[in-house]
Amino acid sequence: MNHYILGLVASFLTVCSLFPQVLKVYQTQRTRDLSLSRYSMIFAGTSLWAVYFWEDNWLAFVNEMLCAALYSYLLYMKLTEKTREE
Amino acid sequence: MNHYILGLVASFLTVCSLFPQVLKVYQTQRTRDLSLSRYSMIFAGTSLWAVYFWEDNWLAFVNEMLCAALYSYLLYMKLTEKTREE
Repeated sequence: MNHYILGLVASFLTVCSLFPQVLKVYQTQRTRDLSLSRYSMIFAGTSLWAVYFWEDNWLAFVNEMLCAALYSYLLYMKLTEKTREE
Repeated sequence: MNHYILGLVASFLTVCSLFPQVLKVYQTQRTRDLSLSRYSMIFAGTSLWAVYFWEDNWLAFVNEMLCAALYSYLLYMKLTEKTREE
């Protein structure tokens, strides 16, 4: 398979795999069962990968940026869950 | 920050963020609340990224391989949950 197409398919799958969780949190506004440590680490990790790929590989950069954006939403919702429940 | 160190930290965070879920499944042997579509997509996605980075970037390759290995465990446990429950 063409290297570029391979990256596109990989990116599509990685980003799409996050949608079920994002949609669930958006619809229910609940994050009680999400792990704060998990989402803190993966948000920091994907953000650092984005910086790492910046200038080197735009496809991987865009992929990490999209993932980091989706994770930031989940992390934000997790961090503000107490405010919503009050 | 040094580019190589940045990648190492990013990889460490990304891989470590998976451990809480893996340990939980290992201890409880339960996967009822895991989404099959989520783990199928992310396993395929990380595997394709590993192929994509093969020869290009060994750090990103190792990172994707480790993630794919951890996701493969979760996916395997999800796919065999019915057998364990019987």
